[in-house]
Amino acid sequence: MPLCPASLKFMNSANRRPLITLLTDFGTRDAYVASMKGVILSLNPQAVLVDLTHEIPPQDVRAGALNLAAAAPYFPPGTIHLAVVDPGVGSSRRALAVRCRNQFWVGPDNGLFHLIFTQASFSIVSLENPRYFRPQVSATFHGRDIFAPVAAHLSLGVDLSRFGPDLTGPVSLDLPAPRFTPEAISGEIIYVDRFGNLISNIRAAELLAWLGDRDLNLTAGPLAMRGLARTYSDAAPGTCLALVGSHGFLEIACSGDNAARRLNAGVGLPVALHPE
Amino acid sequence: MPLCPASLKFMNSANRRPLITLLTDFGTRDAYVASMKGVILSLNPQAVLVDLTHEIPPQDVRAGALNLAAAAPYFPPGTIHLAVVDPGVGSSRRALAVRCRNQFWVGPDNGLFHLIFTQASFSIVSLENPRYFRPQVSATFHGRDIFAPVAAHLSLGVDLSRFGPDLTGPVSLDLPAPRFTPEAISGEIIYVDRFGNLISNIRAAELLAWLGDRDLNLTAGPLAMRGLARTYSDAAPGTCLALVGSHGFLEIACSGDNAARRLNAGVGLPVALHPE
Amino acid sequence: MPLCPASLKFMNSANRRPLITLLTDFGTRDAYVASMKGVILSLNPQAVLVDLTHEIPPQDVRAGALNLAAAAPYFPPGTIHLAVVDPGVGSSRRALAVRCRNQFWVGPDNGLFHLIFTQASFSIVSLENPRYFRPQVSATFHGRDIFAPVAAHLSLGVDLSRFGPDLTGPVSLDLPAPRFTPEAISGEIIYVDRFGNLISNIRAAELLAWLGDRDLNLTAGPLAMRGLARTYSDAAPGTCLALVGSHGFLEIACSGDNAARRLNAGVGLPVALHPE
Repeated sequence: MPLCPASLKFMNSANRRPLITLLTDFGTRDAYVASMKGVILSLNPQAVLVDLTHEIPPQDVRAGALNLAAAAPYFPPGTIHLAVVDPGVGSSRRALAVRCRNQFWVGPDNGLFHLIFTQASFSIVSLENPRYFRPQVSATFHGRDIFAPVAAHLSLGVDLSRFGPDLTGPVSLDLPAPRFTPEAISGEIIYVDRFGNLISNIRAAELLAWLGDRDLNLTAGPLAMRGLARTYSDAAPGTCLALVGSHGFLEIACSGDNAARRLNAGVGLPVALHPE
Repeated sequence: MPLCPASLKFMNSANRRPLITLLTDFGTRDAYVASMKGVILSLNPQAVLVDLTHEIPPQDVRAGALNLAAAAPYFPPGTIHLAVVDPGVGSSRRALAVRCRNQFWVGPDNGLFHLIFTQASFSIVSLENPRYFRPQVSATFHGRDIFAPVAAHLSLGVDLSRFGPDLTGPVSLDLPAPRFTPEAISGEIIYVDRFGNLISNIRAAELLAWLGDRDLNLTAGPLAMRGLARTYSDAAPGTCLALVGSHGFLEIACSGDNAARRLNAGVGLPVALHPE
Repeated sequence: MPLCPASLKFMNSANRRPLITLLTDFGTRDAYVASMKGVILSLNPQAVLVDLTHEIPPQDVRAGALNLAAAAPYFPPGTIHLAVVDPGVGSSRRALAVRCRNQFWVGPDNGLFHLIFTQASFSIVSLENPRYFRPQVSATFHGRDIFAPVAAHLSLGVDLSRFGPDLTGPVSLDLPAPRFTPEAISGEIIYVDRFGNLISNIRAAELLAWLGDRDLNLTAGPLAMRGLARTYSDAAPGTCLALVGSHGFLEIACSGDNAARRLNAGVGLPVALHPE
């Protein structure tokens, strides 16, 4: 059920230039991202562009979804998030635009926006109106030819419904859910950040509700430890600890060190929690 | 023959802030690019800056030229492209500013803009008027001391002719041309993008005119295949295919895989085409 | 002794949008930097953001300080430099904002701004007023929760004194000083840039004053050479040379080659200078 009007018009006063973020797996070595920015600025010279990241591992929809969900809450209402991690480009996968929590998302229908959807109601349309695409749509680069111009038109105040019909049953993300019992949580590592911190699929809020005033035992691969730290500095240099990181998930870090390298661990490592 | 007035004044209405793109081989690890941006924004705080890429391999003028030519068409009229891949900095190589197809290019005269020149008429001047340089010009960093301030002054509406005299005989790019006969095209790989796609020197338009309604046989190193695909998804995962990529050249890709790694191939690999 | 009024109000006319630079060791793979940008643009949609670099090696405060000092002089008055290389985040290390030479610096008190301080008088406050922080301050990400909102409020014209009390005795940077005698300078390499150029701790101005009209002999590891070059092109391809680089320090470069790789040298390599 859509909660909000599906247009940016009311938001963009003279003081608030429309803000478009970009997340891709294109890297920054080639000019692919710049082409998208050129298309956007050709249509809306007032748009302010912010890179979320372009270093998503090629075709890793999950990493894209996690980074998108991590950053979006810090952007103002009306922000348009343009995201392209798109292994199915040119196939029959659908393209979509979403309004959710007063922000917009534009990209392929492959689970990239799943973590947004799970937390709120939303409006969602299938991008089918070629009026808002580039005149020639290539089969290989929908980021430039479909998603960038749609984001630009959204930023100009075009109503969501103009881009195409409502889309039902958007594709889900293949993300493992942690298992909770009163006496244990079984989760796993789903992302490793640039510092080597190991981010699990166990959400802070759910962990803390489950834990109550009990203390925590954690085992993950070779690591067994006790207690939840407040900050990376809470352990002696080189010592590992568990804490709630800035993604809002339980993560494992080693003070002053790269946890992934030190524990020889990565995505998929099981994490088991028991109350003390 | 210049086709257009050599000033931006007419383009920059209140609504269109001047747009300057930056392409270098400086990488993003050091603050070199940022220094250039500081110089530009000191002179013209209204300028909008867009990075094309700063990951051109050090001193690889050809890679710079290819990326510049690939991205420029997607930027609006009046865009100024500032490009610095400059192995000859501090030597007697000339510096230039060009107007072509309602956009501007600023950088060293070493072939970096060759692919633009080959496609249209243009105006070109040698940057010699120190009034538009930084007060102190270092011998090592013309990007910051000459090219950035010239781009900023262009964005303020300074006429091209003010920067110096007409320049004749700009340096050409060392780019191999494909050989066409009625029964074969001999080309080669000239660029490998971040996905490992192998981009050849065979332009789509020329290929399609040559091919007519015949089918295509392609051989490249260990690879022999038939037909031109429309999209990366047209082949089974792991299968390689040939298609017209977003640079406008014939390219070789392997569905869901890195073609350069899989074929152990890179720049210089011969590509032979025969009609079926 | 503060020389200047501690507010941006007088600087930001309608024509000069407030400029905030960002330097971190967060890399660009994750969305950490983007979260900071979202926080800033939520508070001040008019802010113009420029990345200095996000590729500072993790927790390398010295590399951060050097890049910050190298780039800042090229930015206009009123620029706010937001810098986060922060191994002590969440510990008792202080946070600060500085005004110096008509620009502002915001970040942790760990030596990151030391090279600015050594060159001019400055005003400095300890960031203690939570009114200018995000409502919830995490223990792990002060870049987003403290430094970004403080920078945004500075850009809105909030007076420096509002953020907290004067801070005395800011932490110094652990940077080796060169030793000067009339007949020798003993310095060392303190930074290697992306081209492999070896940047020493010997400042150009001090070197030239010491040298007078004498010629220079330089030894550094396997390298012994004579004279100071003006530009990277002054030597035959593959030959190494010493010159004043764009950081304002003596540096060693090898024409058309990577000096660090060629000399198998890096940070800490001693550099000895003798007059001829």
